[in-house]
Amino acid sequence: MTIALDAMGGDDAPGMVIRGANIARERYPEVDFLMFGREPELRPFLDKLASLKAVTTLVHTDDVVLGDDKPSIALRSGRNSSMRLAINSVREGTADVVVSAGNTGALMAMAKFVLKTLPGVARPAIAAFFPTLRGETLMLDLGANVVCDSRNLVDFAVMGNAFARCVVGVLQPSFGLLNVGSEEVKGHEALQEASVVLRDADLPGHFVGFIEGDDIAKGSVDVVITDGFTGNVALKTAEGTASLISEYMRRTFKSSLLAGLGYLLARSAMRKLRKRLDPRHYNGAIFLGLNGVAVKSHGGTDELGFANAIGVAIDMKKYGIVERTRTDFANLSLPSLKAQAVNG
Amino acid sequence: MTIALDAMGGDDAPGMVIRGANIARERYPEVDFLMFGREPELRPFLDKLASLKAVTTLVHTDDVVLGDDKPSIALRSGRNSSMRLAINSVREGTADVVVSAGNTGALMAMAKFVLKTLPGVARPAIAAFFPTLRGETLMLDLGANVVCDSRNLVDFAVMGNAFARCVVGVLQPSFGLLNVGSEEVKGHEALQEASVVLRDADLPGHFVGFIEGDDIAKGSVDVVITDGFTGNVALKTAEGTASLISEYMRRTFKSSLLAGLGYLLARSAMRKLRKRLDPRHYNGAIFLGLNGVAVKSHGGTDELGFANAIGVAIDMKKYGIVERTRTDFANLSLPSLKAQAVNG
Repeated sequence: MTIALDAMGGDDAPGMVIRGANIARERYPEVDFLMFGREPELRPFLDKLASLKAVTTLVHTDDVVLGDDKPSIALRSGRNSSMRLAINSVREGTADVVVSAGNTGALMAMAKFVLKTLPGVARPAIAAFFPTLRGETLMLDLGANVVCDSRNLVDFAVMGNAFARCVVGVLQPSFGLLNVGSEEVKGHEALQEASVVLRDADLPGHFVGFIEGDDIAKGSVDVVITDGFTGNVALKTAEGTASLISEYMRRTFKSSLLAGLGYLLARSAMRKLRKRLDPRHYNGAIFLGLNGVAVKSHGGTDELGFANAIGVAIDMKKYGIVERTRTDFANLSLPSLKAQAVNG
Repeated sequence: MTIALDAMGGDDAPGMVIRGANIARERYPEVDFLMFGREPELRPFLDKLASLKAVTTLVHTDDVVLGDDKPSIALRSGRNSSMRLAINSVREGTADVVVSAGNTGALMAMAKFVLKTLPGVARPAIAAFFPTLRGETLMLDLGANVVCDSRNLVDFAVMGNAFARCVVGVLQPSFGLLNVGSEEVKGHEALQEASVVLRDADLPGHFVGFIEGDDIAKGSVDVVITDGFTGNVALKTAEGTASLISEYMRRTFKSSLLAGLGYLLARSAMRKLRKRLDPRHYNGAIFLGLNGVAVKSHGGTDELGFANAIGVAIDMKKYGIVERTRTDFANLSLPSLKAQAVNG
């Protein structure tokens, strides 16, 4: 399996990307890499890692998509950027998956333009895992689509359902629509419509209907379906809350000698807790609905987080998420969806 | 000051309400109570608390709004309910504020119908405090208005700004619109429009523009402005995340003998942390934009939480939030708002 990497994306690129690739190489000895970026900047990092260098092909390009480039601008003027060339390599078949820690909007716009969406999918979505009381929950969309209609939400449900079965390995995934109340009367019109369609749909697993914000961390469902605006706010609110409590805890253990001593005793257990909540562990935003595997790493992550994002991409390819999603959309028997699919 | 209480609202009503009133009486010796509910059920609780009984007038009614009653139904058929009579007493001037732990939608519908919105306010909103790294942040709307236009968002900003100055005591509050990115180009049209209006508005304090989900817990602003759908999801996601981490911590300290011993040493500091994150401390959802003070307590809270909700209502009355909000809307110099105000 060949991994295409946008070596120039991310706050600490290219060093972080190259060190992350090296960690991934240790974890997945079967993969090799195709790295796109400014060779003079990449070379010194690569030269230090002989084993990685042995399985890496470096493709030089001067062009880079910046973090604050607008997606439309990046799409037009970034044709030779490291990001774009990495995506191209998946379409051309020289790589199997692409991973970038660069500009999310640009990556999605380019991936959509180059790889295309799968038949029946109107709009691709961004998904990620959340830690929960029961394990992990997948949520989508996390920001690719700020405004969504019922059709988009149904698509996200099909895509998330496919991912849960195929990559996570849940045979009968439960899934629900994020709303402000579990009563059928509440929420936007798009949510009401999507709920009606999903009730009639014969998707594998169990559609539980509407869920609320606190159901995310409870792990009430395997897949949480929402529009990109709400999903993005929920994701960042959860991250912010977790940081707040971590900071409170840090202050708590520093607040007295006894508390500090208590921390020392509990240290090894606390380390496990920190690991469990470590955002690097959940790094790797999954692009779903595309005719190819693309994963977005957090821009501010380190090599460990980036290696995890590569791992997500490898799993998606290994378990055939693109084929699974394609088949699921082809088998969808909802007349309302079939009729609209031509607009996709 | 007289507090009207819907004694029948809440999971553990009326006992929780009456015990909560008793705690509030100890904290605020200047207040008396007007309690609405089924006298035979209330009397035994009240008879046990002589000091509370001495400052309480009990008004019997058999009718009760149920937790799952639709607001429209409650409005039509709940004219003699404890909730409705408690709200009526504020309009009639026999009470200064009303507090209920009952059905949120019914309470808002009745409060809006009976008390009316203030001139210039199209729709009232629900606000509450969030713990942050810097102290507390006020956020609104938290669920009164699922779909909001730019006008509503601007109103919420004016209302939240008035509350921050008048009740919280921040002379120059900072406030921002919750969005998916801080760039001006992102987000719904309503957000873009509201942002333009608020930039031109001469509201006291500082409009920072767009903020993101993680800014809530960071305390980046004094007032977070959002629509009721997003606000409700964010509130519940934050609550869910906090519960998840608390549970993880509980498991962490139970995971080994050393960790348990560490907890014992840090216990007093941990107690302070728990207190800081105690949802009862933040209990009391504030109804803003009404011609009267109404506060909604969480239905599942206990007497301590309910007493805190009463405290919020007392502060709102004491610091004159209704008059402040009325004046602020009267002084608003935005032509676009003045023109639309007749629709309010």
